[in-house]
Amino acid sequence: MIELKSLIFPSLVTLVSLIVYFVLIINVGRARSKYNVPVPQTSGNPDFERVFRVQQNTLEQLILFLPNLWLFSLFISPIWGAGIGTIWVIGRIIYAWGYYQAAEKRILGFAINSLSTMVLIIGSLVGIIKIFATGV
Amino acid sequence: MIELKSLIFPSLVTLVSLIVYFVLIINVGRARSKYNVPVPQTSGNPDFERVFRVQQNTLEQLILFLPNLWLFSLFISPIWGAGIGTIWVIGRIIYAWGYYQAAEKRILGFAINSLSTMVLIIGSLVGIIKIFATGV
Amino acid sequence: MIELKSLIFPSLVTLVSLIVYFVLIINVGRARSKYNVPVPQTSGNPDFERVFRVQQNTLEQLILFLPNLWLFSLFISPIWGAGIGTIWVIGRIIYAWGYYQAAEKRILGFAINSLSTMVLIIGSLVGIIKIFATGV
Repeated sequence: MIELKSLIFPSLVTLVSLIVYFVLIINVGRARSKYNVPVPQTSGNPDFERVFRVQQNTLEQLILFLPNLWLFSLFISPIWGAGIGTIWVIGRIIYAWGYYQAAEKRILGFAINSLSTMVLIIGSLVGIIKIFATGV
Repeated sequence: MIELKSLIFPSLVTLVSLIVYFVLIINVGRARSKYNVPVPQTSGNPDFERVFRVQQNTLEQLILFLPNLWLFSLFISPIWGAGIGTIWVIGRIIYAWGYYQAAEKRILGFAINSLSTMVLIIGSLVGIIKIFATGV
Repeated sequence: MIELKSLIFPSLVTLVSLIVYFVLIINVGRARSKYNVPVPQTSGNPDFERVFRVQQNTLEQLILFLPNLWLFSLFISPIWGAGIGTIWVIGRIIYAWGYYQAAEKRILGFAINSLSTMVLIIGSLVGIIKIFATGV
């Protein structure tokens, strides 16, 4: 059965990743006034577009990251899941503040994110296959 | 251990929020034909853009709302989580139908959403820290 | 109480849907270089826009699909949930590779997705109402 206490670490990483995302959303609002881009417009000013793309890309990655974080935590290890998840969050912060400066500076953070996501995917797959192998 | 019955209220709020989102997706399809905006285009007509932005913004907010709703429900209280979640859903409906009319009319619903999301985030954080404090 | 082993099938479907999405993200990156669309730009070339819209639409649908898959699996049946989820994944693959060819060819996959999502929503609703009816 699933115990709540064992899930405390992936829960904390989930929460921190969402707080980072919340800050990125606020940054879009601030960039709207700074660069004078009224809603519902989302393009036209390249400086605004970078701030907007950071948030959009984080949204695109979160839907990949969060379920995989939890599958990994449930089927492999919540501690390891949270550890890899922490690396993901750090990568995302590097990505965001890099991309804010220049489009080329998004590469390092993006690589960290892609790598940690791939580890979570492969780990989850191994964990699920292992349960099938030992009998559902 | 986690009991299913105790999660019935946050489950219901999750489902209702997704049904609202499903309706917003259908509205984008209808706005495509009404304002004559063929796929894959997403801009050009400001009336269509508002309907499209409502759905996009709801997507952006759901990834923040749903995990926080569940963290709050698990670590603080499923009843209170569902209560705050219900306020979020009402705020989202006010946001959508306000924004459909005019960009300025999105403010009230957005404020209700931001506030309820922040309560869920802070509550989840307190709940998680409390478990750490009492020993994992 | 919730047992992990009973959730193995929806977990596998979740993972496969995320791997498909991961491939669609990679395809956007490849289309960026193929059609010469630099970041943060997301429009301008209709061939790129179709590849981009496939990924965006999958993101929009995943936030609807994944929570409903899990509500259905928890409140109705994990086996049936995984079965309908498998149909959803197949529909998404048909949608993506259809849309890559031409905008009109996205219809069949989209219909399969909408239908399976609606079955998951209605099933979850029935499952939740049933628990309310038998007493929470």
